[in-house]
Amino acid sequence: MTKKNFCIIMAGGVGSRFWPLSTTATPKQFLDILGVGKTLLQLTYERMVKIVPPENFYVVTNAQYENIVLQQIPDLQPHQVLKEPLRKNTAPCIAYGNHEIRKRTEDANIIVTPSDHLILNEEDFLNTVTAGWEFTQNNDSLLTLGIKPTRPDTGFGYIQIKEEVSEINSLKINKVKTFTEKPELEIAKMFLKSGDFFWNSGIFLWSLKSIDCAFKTYLPKVYDLFTAEQFVLDDVYSNCPNISIDYGIMEKAENVYVLQSSFGWSDLGTWGALYENAEKDEMQNAVIGENVMTYNTKNCVISMPNNKLAVVDGLENCIVVDTADKLLICKRDDEQKIRQFVNDIKFQKGESYI
Amino acid sequence: MTKKNFCIIMAGGVGSRFWPLSTTATPKQFLDILGVGKTLLQLTYERMVKIVPPENFYVVTNAQYENIVLQQIPDLQPHQVLKEPLRKNTAPCIAYGNHEIRKRTEDANIIVTPSDHLILNEEDFLNTVTAGWEFTQNNDSLLTLGIKPTRPDTGFGYIQIKEEVSEINSLKINKVKTFTEKPELEIAKMFLKSGDFFWNSGIFLWSLKSIDCAFKTYLPKVYDLFTAEQFVLDDVYSNCPNISIDYGIMEKAENVYVLQSSFGWSDLGTWGALYENAEKDEMQNAVIGENVMTYNTKNCVISMPNNKLAVVDGLENCIVVDTADKLLICKRDDEQKIRQFVNDIKFQKGESYI
Repeated sequence: MTKKNFCIIMAGGVGSRFWPLSTTATPKQFLDILGVGKTLLQLTYERMVKIVPPENFYVVTNAQYENIVLQQIPDLQPHQVLKEPLRKNTAPCIAYGNHEIRKRTEDANIIVTPSDHLILNEEDFLNTVTAGWEFTQNNDSLLTLGIKPTRPDTGFGYIQIKEEVSEINSLKINKVKTFTEKPELEIAKMFLKSGDFFWNSGIFLWSLKSIDCAFKTYLPKVYDLFTAEQFVLDDVYSNCPNISIDYGIMEKAENVYVLQSSFGWSDLGTWGALYENAEKDEMQNAVIGENVMTYNTKNCVISMPNNKLAVVDGLENCIVVDTADKLLICKRDDEQKIRQFVNDIKFQKGESYI
Repeated sequence: MTKKNFCIIMAGGVGSRFWPLSTTATPKQFLDILGVGKTLLQLTYERMVKIVPPENFYVVTNAQYENIVLQQIPDLQPHQVLKEPLRKNTAPCIAYGNHEIRKRTEDANIIVTPSDHLILNEEDFLNTVTAGWEFTQNNDSLLTLGIKPTRPDTGFGYIQIKEEVSEINSLKINKVKTFTEKPELEIAKMFLKSGDFFWNSGIFLWSLKSIDCAFKTYLPKVYDLFTAEQFVLDDVYSNCPNISIDYGIMEKAENVYVLQSSFGWSDLGTWGALYENAEKDEMQNAVIGENVMTYNTKNCVISMPNNKLAVVDGLENCIVVDTADKLLICKRDDEQKIRQFVNDIKFQKGESYI
């Protein structure tokens, strides 16, 4: 492990798709959503700490989550939790991380990773990151981990590759041709068949030099704000545009590459994704919770607190999520409606009910 | 209202059919199962107190429920809660009530009523009781309130009547021909069609003299135990047979009569019965709880604590019952399985989970 390796964990997200498990007070990344005894943030940290020294982590999150981050990762010092005063999407988040890393060394290898993704094969993942850094150290490049698709998923963005430029430890690196948004099913099927399309994992590898250079070129205002002599965080964020790293840099830069990866990845973006990745019983139910009894129930996702007893009889293809003060029962096919439910609750009951 | 009127409320039952709302710690009679703001016991007391003075009530229950009874009916003095040391069915329960009433007057009119039934039309009910007492005061008789059936229900026992012996305030009183157990559907349909069969409500009217005489004749051992010089409650119950008033007396005595009643009655013995009697929304859901939101959900029974938010999407013909530490989701057609679920829980998790 080298002291030059740095990790920026993006942990500021607040999604409603996993409501009522994930709430504004405790978003998904801070939950043991898989029932494995560790939160997604903890899993992310424990995975990365094998190749990044603990003092080289920066967790970027909203100010309100500082304590939860420090509780969940006791290794971290308070200054390693970067508290965003406003939510401004991923580009400012990464610029903030860079700002801290720049104080430490100008020669950093950086991985930027979401805090709430699932990675099944840790060894493959770490080998992939190591290979990627070998490339980014020696080439002025912005490298994204592209996941070899295994199904025509319409829930992800896709990256189309062009010519291969390198191969490190049997892992191929290609130039990027295009980024595409979430496709329709027919298109997704074509993408899968062509072999040139990869899922956009949102995990990035680069050197500090390369990403700084990219910010200077494509998001100069953001770069200037984060490198000004007078650095006042609230002012920086007030003046910073709300823009994603994909839109602001990756889709514009010339030196963007994909590392073809296959370490068993899911963004766990939906209950469906959780269902796919969770352990299932003989009736194909994904059950989280120690006291759940099912009868004539199949293809369901059931998430219960361990200390609560549940009897579920006669359900098929449903999502059942129970928390101390909220219960959701919903058809799996209707999970895109969860956002609507959450909006209805805000409107009918008030923000505090979310 | 006459000081001769006495009421014995039987409140010792512990059913599992309403699990998880009804538990051993808090059986159904102590719950606001209809979501009306009052428990079934309270509704029973408030109905009867219009024709029985508060000091003439005796609530017979298991010792463990003494406090809950006194909390729910603040009018009662502790000596009016008769604490059974053992569960011995309805005959000893009634004998215990008689034992207390006998100390007060030998000339009592008594109503014996379950604590957990629903009565919709209170005025008709009170008129029925008043008419019934007029008959039992003047005739050595054991009178049961027979409910005119409105459907071929297979969940109740039926009573077949023979000749009419009296009519008081347009209410007819007939001799009983037979008591029958819960019938098969085809038989129940015949019962309904014949017009001679009534649902056995388990509500009884008689004078103290007549019921004492019946105990002496048909259950002399029980009578002797409860009238012995040396009355030691624990000994009485240890030595008392476990026997119902129906089997021990009503099916054997010669002077048993039915008062033909129609005051809107349900024993609320099942979720189905609750569903029939609860208010329903436009999708025919019976929803109990102030924060339940339903989408594409119909013909369901949903019971949630008021302080818990629930979103239910895409369910049909289901029972959803949530409590602090238990959740049941079950097809309405499967409600007879709830006993099995409860047994499975006892076996797999332990008695404390019920």
